[in-house]
Amino acid sequence: MIKLNEHYTEIGNNYLFAEVARRVKEYKTAQPEKQVISLGIGDVTQPIVPAVIEAIHKATDEMANAATLRGYAPYEGYDFLIQAILKHDFVDRGIDIAADEIFVSDGAKSDTGNIGDILGKENLVAVTDPAYPVYVDTNKMAGRNITLLPCTPANDFVPAFPEKPVDVIYLCYPNNPTGTVLTKLQLKKWVDYALEHQSLILFDAAYEAYISQPDVPHSIYEIPGAKKVAIEFRSFSKTAGFTGMRAGYTIVPKELTATTSKGETLSLNTMWLRRQSTKFNGTAYIVQRGAEAVYSSEGQKQIREVIQYYMENARIIKNGLEELGLTTYGGVNAPYIWTQTPNGQTSWEFFDLLLNQAQVVGTPGSGFGQSGEGFFRFTAFGNRENTIEAVRRIKNLF
Amino acid sequence: MIKLNEHYTEIGNNYLFAEVARRVKEYKTAQPEKQVISLGIGDVTQPIVPAVIEAIHKATDEMANAATLRGYAPYEGYDFLIQAILKHDFVDRGIDIAADEIFVSDGAKSDTGNIGDILGKENLVAVTDPAYPVYVDTNKMAGRNITLLPCTPANDFVPAFPEKPVDVIYLCYPNNPTGTVLTKLQLKKWVDYALEHQSLILFDAAYEAYISQPDVPHSIYEIPGAKKVAIEFRSFSKTAGFTGMRAGYTIVPKELTATTSKGETLSLNTMWLRRQSTKFNGTAYIVQRGAEAVYSSEGQKQIREVIQYYMENARIIKNGLEELGLTTYGGVNAPYIWTQTPNGQTSWEFFDLLLNQAQVVGTPGSGFGQSGEGFFRFTAFGNRENTIEAVRRIKNLF
Repeated sequence: MIKLNEHYTEIGNNYLFAEVARRVKEYKTAQPEKQVISLGIGDVTQPIVPAVIEAIHKATDEMANAATLRGYAPYEGYDFLIQAILKHDFVDRGIDIAADEIFVSDGAKSDTGNIGDILGKENLVAVTDPAYPVYVDTNKMAGRNITLLPCTPANDFVPAFPEKPVDVIYLCYPNNPTGTVLTKLQLKKWVDYALEHQSLILFDAAYEAYISQPDVPHSIYEIPGAKKVAIEFRSFSKTAGFTGMRAGYTIVPKELTATTSKGETLSLNTMWLRRQSTKFNGTAYIVQRGAEAVYSSEGQKQIREVIQYYMENARIIKNGLEELGLTTYGGVNAPYIWTQTPNGQTSWEFFDLLLNQAQVVGTPGSGFGQSGEGFFRFTAFGNRENTIEAVRRIKNLF
Repeated sequence: MIKLNEHYTEIGNNYLFAEVARRVKEYKTAQPEKQVISLGIGDVTQPIVPAVIEAIHKATDEMANAATLRGYAPYEGYDFLIQAILKHDFVDRGIDIAADEIFVSDGAKSDTGNIGDILGKENLVAVTDPAYPVYVDTNKMAGRNITLLPCTPANDFVPAFPEKPVDVIYLCYPNNPTGTVLTKLQLKKWVDYALEHQSLILFDAAYEAYISQPDVPHSIYEIPGAKKVAIEFRSFSKTAGFTGMRAGYTIVPKELTATTSKGETLSLNTMWLRRQSTKFNGTAYIVQRGAEAVYSSEGQKQIREVIQYYMENARIIKNGLEELGLTTYGGVNAPYIWTQTPNGQTSWEFFDLLLNQAQVVGTPGSGFGQSGEGFFRFTAFGNRENTIEAVRRIKNLF
């Protein structure tokens, strides 16, 4: 008899963005003449930059020739990409990371979802609330107990330490969905907490490229001691428009260990390589060459322009909402604007109002966790024209 | 305190092919002037066919334009690819599969590795021995008990039913590593077994494109009742040289269910979609367009030529070994030749002999499981010149 992993019954059938898509589709079917603008799922709208496109074409041509064909990639990624990551994201920032601590993958979603594979079921897990749904869902699937750490205006979106010590803590900064950040000092307190309690911080830095203020850490490894307690996830999705290309990477420092019930101490770096080499077969060569080109001088210049374009959208949305008297957060070091819903509406009520009356799609805050109720997330990833039009329509509602 | 998934300590640190690579590297360092020929890991050597290359270039150009940019892909794959798969691999063969039973992924290795996510730890798992190491390793990582089903010349490589009923059975046909197949009647017996015991067959058909004989099923769904008991894995790696491109797909029929301890019956199709939408974010658009082109009439013609090229290599290796008096299996419906080692040597002894005396790399049978001891695997994925030279060198050893 086939037995199910019963923990799968403890989560809903609908992933948040699937429910948003369902309601939008229903509306579009009923009102086919209406032009719906999405500032919802956080998918990019600007094309992939020329330096990356050129690198992918070149790599594709290599695959057409037996002499330059690339077959199975190294499980941990090609050295050309690892060296580019190492130099630009770490060495140039004065951060000491080794090449064999970097694992290239098909995206931060896969890695944040799969990292639990190497961790015991009995770990107590803390997740900031609201949060990217993958953290909670994947831990529920594994049968782990979860403690939520509320992040609201009351604590300035800085999570307080849990009452009872936890083993694993998910932190995402710049934050999805709130767009808020931690200063170096605020992040240092969490690193110190993890050092004291021998906990593991899973640090999701997918939005690092959007940081504009000086005191905001780009990597958790800027904090002394972090290599003993933290795994960091990075993504090319929002940095270089790779949502449809699929590439990211994860840092698992060699100093990081976990213990067995017999008191043995084992390396998480070794365990993650074992996981990746057994359940994953590398990221496409042509995509890795595209990711490498992100770090070229042309690539860097081109992606900075796209990021500035999106951040101007963020400014337009944030100013527009504030002119209406709505309180907003984020949008300065992150491509997300988190706003309180007007008149005490629930997140889904505001979602339906915006969809039905203004044909604007955002993401209901409650979909990210209970502390997101009464909030709403807008993304800056639209194009300029749609962003301006969406703000105009929202203003007309009030 | 960070607690490890302790099941990871129950498997070796070295994945089989990593150990092969280590010994080859050591030899090459010691003997830099020697030309080593690899008929080992099973990576392809022939370039990706023009139809696929052209499709990838075209798709890459779409990503350079805001109007045609593709962001996040559907979790289950693009409809254009699913429809091509459906028509060519199933409808045209008279097999009734629905579009929403097909899940495109970054390869069969990921899917055969991750499928266990939706299954309970308490399932008793049967794995043919020898087998692709992923089946055993991933189940050990999940803490499941494994029963081995020996496949040797004594049973003509047809696994016998386990003594005690099992819940999950891995079958790979055409088989890696033995290159042997099951006839329709032999596979039907396993489907009937699964129907009787309400077991799940995980059917790995990665080498389906290499079948040359008429009575060998290309899909388990050719067998009546199989949709109630089987998940099938397919790969573009060996069909179209995608080892470095990463694409495959998995069929999870909607009739397939698993039960909870409370006796509830749940759909594995729904659970797998939940798994994929939570821990995976789709396969790169440009790679999916490449996979679609495999099914074009040009693409089909071009990949058939490559497959015939490799199968001619298989014939050369098989004949060469048999001329030496070695007993061989496979190589007719599969790109693998499985041979008994000479003079009672262990698999690794024969590996070292071939590497040191003939500079030919193969894969030791014992690396695929205990029943593989005394056997050795050669792959037909080399180029013609190297394949002929490897056989010549082996002949000189005797």
